[in-house]
Amino acid sequence: MHRLKAQQIAHLVNTRQLSAVEVATAVCDRLERLNPSLNAFIDYQRADVLARARTSDQRVAAKQYLPLAGVPFSVKDNLWLGGRPATFGSRVFADFVAPRDSWCVQRLGELGGVALGMTNCSEFACKGITTNPLHGTTRNPWNLELTPGGSSGGAVAAVAAGLGPLALATDAGGSTRRPAAHTGLVGFKPSLGAVPNPWGFADPNHLLSVIGQLGRDVEDVALMARSLFAWCPSDPLSQPHFSAQSLAPTPRAPRSLRIAWSPDLGLGLPLDSDVASAMVAALATLERDGWSIELASPCWPGGLEGYALLGLQHTALAAQFGALADEQLQQLDPDILAQIELGRALSGVQTARLLALRNGLSITLAAFFDDYDLLLCPTAPVEAWAVGQLGPATIGGQPAGPRGHAGYTPVFNYCGVPALSLPCGFGKQGLPVGLQVIAPRYMDGRVLQAAAEMERVLGLSFEAPMLRNQGIPQPL
Amino acid sequence: MHRLKAQQIAHLVNTRQLSAVEVATAVCDRLERLNPSLNAFIDYQRADVLARARTSDQRVAAKQYLPLAGVPFSVKDNLWLGGRPATFGSRVFADFVAPRDSWCVQRLGELGGVALGMTNCSEFACKGITTNPLHGTTRNPWNLELTPGGSSGGAVAAVAAGLGPLALATDAGGSTRRPAAHTGLVGFKPSLGAVPNPWGFADPNHLLSVIGQLGRDVEDVALMARSLFAWCPSDPLSQPHFSAQSLAPTPRAPRSLRIAWSPDLGLGLPLDSDVASAMVAALATLERDGWSIELASPCWPGGLEGYALLGLQHTALAAQFGALADEQLQQLDPDILAQIELGRALSGVQTARLLALRNGLSITLAAFFDDYDLLLCPTAPVEAWAVGQLGPATIGGQPAGPRGHAGYTPVFNYCGVPALSLPCGFGKQGLPVGLQVIAPRYMDGRVLQAAAEMERVLGLSFEAPMLRNQGIPQPL
Repeated sequence: MHRLKAQQIAHLVNTRQLSAVEVATAVCDRLERLNPSLNAFIDYQRADVLARARTSDQRVAAKQYLPLAGVPFSVKDNLWLGGRPATFGSRVFADFVAPRDSWCVQRLGELGGVALGMTNCSEFACKGITTNPLHGTTRNPWNLELTPGGSSGGAVAAVAAGLGPLALATDAGGSTRRPAAHTGLVGFKPSLGAVPNPWGFADPNHLLSVIGQLGRDVEDVALMARSLFAWCPSDPLSQPHFSAQSLAPTPRAPRSLRIAWSPDLGLGLPLDSDVASAMVAALATLERDGWSIELASPCWPGGLEGYALLGLQHTALAAQFGALADEQLQQLDPDILAQIELGRALSGVQTARLLALRNGLSITLAAFFDDYDLLLCPTAPVEAWAVGQLGPATIGGQPAGPRGHAGYTPVFNYCGVPALSLPCGFGKQGLPVGLQVIAPRYMDGRVLQAAAEMERVLGLSFEAPMLRNQGIPQPL
Repeated sequence: MHRLKAQQIAHLVNTRQLSAVEVATAVCDRLERLNPSLNAFIDYQRADVLARARTSDQRVAAKQYLPLAGVPFSVKDNLWLGGRPATFGSRVFADFVAPRDSWCVQRLGELGGVALGMTNCSEFACKGITTNPLHGTTRNPWNLELTPGGSSGGAVAAVAAGLGPLALATDAGGSTRRPAAHTGLVGFKPSLGAVPNPWGFADPNHLLSVIGQLGRDVEDVALMARSLFAWCPSDPLSQPHFSAQSLAPTPRAPRSLRIAWSPDLGLGLPLDSDVASAMVAALATLERDGWSIELASPCWPGGLEGYALLGLQHTALAAQFGALADEQLQQLDPDILAQIELGRALSGVQTARLLALRNGLSITLAAFFDDYDLLLCPTAPVEAWAVGQLGPATIGGQPAGPRGHAGYTPVFNYCGVPALSLPCGFGKQGLPVGLQVIAPRYMDGRVLQAAAEMERVLGLSFEAPMLRNQGIPQPL
């Protein structure tokens, strides 16, 4: 099934040209073959998958039209698949069994989707690569020596390897978008509040985390987003009237949009020259096609230096997990424990100032969007790097810290705006790189519509070599 | 003009039966006579008021229909009236001149309203009575020996004394609703995000503060709310599609609503017996009229003891003003300085836990609203008390701390839900008491519709004695 789009699968299953069980069987065969080398799935039960597929077939047989009939999707390990382990990437939750589906999991199931299992993530989804002490390391289908990034590394590895067309992930600082860029996928972080998440693990991100959508192209991702946008009164961030209708095409054609391109995001962020070249080439293709793109950056307020706003994650991690017994603290990923220590050292006044700064970023970006309809910037400044490293040693020829690769994404979480990573070309190692497409808050429809058109104009293909491997179970 | 409703004034001015200048002149005469004993207005310029009224008349003469033609309104001193002092109730801002109107002030002016001047509030709007070192004490038109409460004491004193039918206030923890209860007015705190507030003083409340509407009856307050609900992309809390239309009457008639009444809000809050009696009598009147009211309270999570969530205000105050020079700090209200000291002592982890608790309250209240359409509870558990005291010494026969009178309101700020104080009867001193009407977030229209109907059924009159005084300039 790895070359069929989600919409095609749903059509074939709804019209009974293919059964959900056939789809699930093909994906399970492939998954069982490929997962041992990827470590994308950390919980998977073939019998459960087939049972869910049978349910979907039965509903179709009972004349229900299901927008996601038989479409396989995976679930990030910080979400819940009822009755199955959900570990948040942590030994602390090694024995936890999800008491019910997360809202988004339940919703995709209601629409006919078939959950495959749980995908690996970094502990508490708080690290930019996908390793953790409980489940180990997830690898990149483009090259098993490389990381797919994180925290949603299992989710992107699954889709990029053809293990289901869709993946549910989360994004509190780029966790959906950066891994998508590193694996040639489309990753979407909707507006804060667009997709309900009313129960489940408490996210240690001061409510920055949103449910992300991952797929191989914009159309599949938009189908998934359309399925998930809803109002849910029991989610304090959820909005009335902001639903699937909000994704309807905007009246303005993409070529009439005022588009800004910011290679350093106005933050002086370094960028590898081969990544920059790939993006400039993509922008040139769009300009030849009639798009109007200007060089411009938001004028951010001071105080963002040194990833200061990560302090919010640090205090929240410390508040949520800092009171664990020493024995449990020692079971944590040392990188996460270090974040907790940083959080313990922050004062209430510093935290309040960070929250005020976060609000200031929203105001700045809203003012920028008075003059532009869309902002484009890199999703990540580098190609994927070797597993086992928090980030590449250098970026743009300069020494880079462990978060150096992750500077382009969190600001759009702080601002609550929709942001999508679109594969736009390749770096010098032949690995995919992603262009980030950002619009004002609640203008999710504009992002999806423009990205779909960009994808069509660029006309590139992003199939991981693993998709072409011999000897792997192929689609029906 | 003190007995004409806002809508009547607008009708008379729009149809040129009365000019905005005549209205403004009558209110100014009255204001100049009464304000010295009230200290409601702390900045007022007769010539400016008349000039604004003339503008309104000219626009009407030019055939513009203005929904608020000639309607006088006052502006709380933590908002901005362009070109006039705005001091936030603080000597720190004694020399500040507002560079422009606040969005809400500008909007009411665009609709034909006539700003009268600035009304007194406690420093930084962070105290439940209306005294500050810069402008002194504001008094209650029902009895000049009493406080009108706070922080919007000037705003309610103005309306209750007949100095304009409408007042713009703010509400971060009850600052609009409690003063309304203490002066026989209707005070409305809309859903968080309903009324834009994109520029002005930064509120030291972690974005809890909303623009409040004050008037003598629900219809006037609803007119004001309808005028102010809008989407403003540059306010990070503002919502698309949530506008005046959101206030349209709901399909359900008030008598079919499932209504909960909680005399202690599920928090064990003490309540004076005379206040309780007035409320029980009002509820009995509603029940005889066919309303269905059950005794029920939300099951709040633990951690609210001792007004713990005020810690958010304390850290925000400390973040915003704690770095002032010692000389300036000594100019602050000692009660505010004490809050800053408390804020300085809180850790980042404690702050993060309070933010998580705040989120938990929203989830709790949303679950409660699965079973009920409206929640009723006291706005304040006491009648107004003597000026100079932070609160009454006892409540419900028990010793009360300085925030004891303010326990019923902040939780609805933390939850972001609409809440209105409706005058519902009188206490043992013959002073008005207020019933709080609360609905789920964004159900502002339900609150206003139900409160209007309750007001009609109760059929009470709440005119302060000052309104009946001899020798005061009377309406035309």
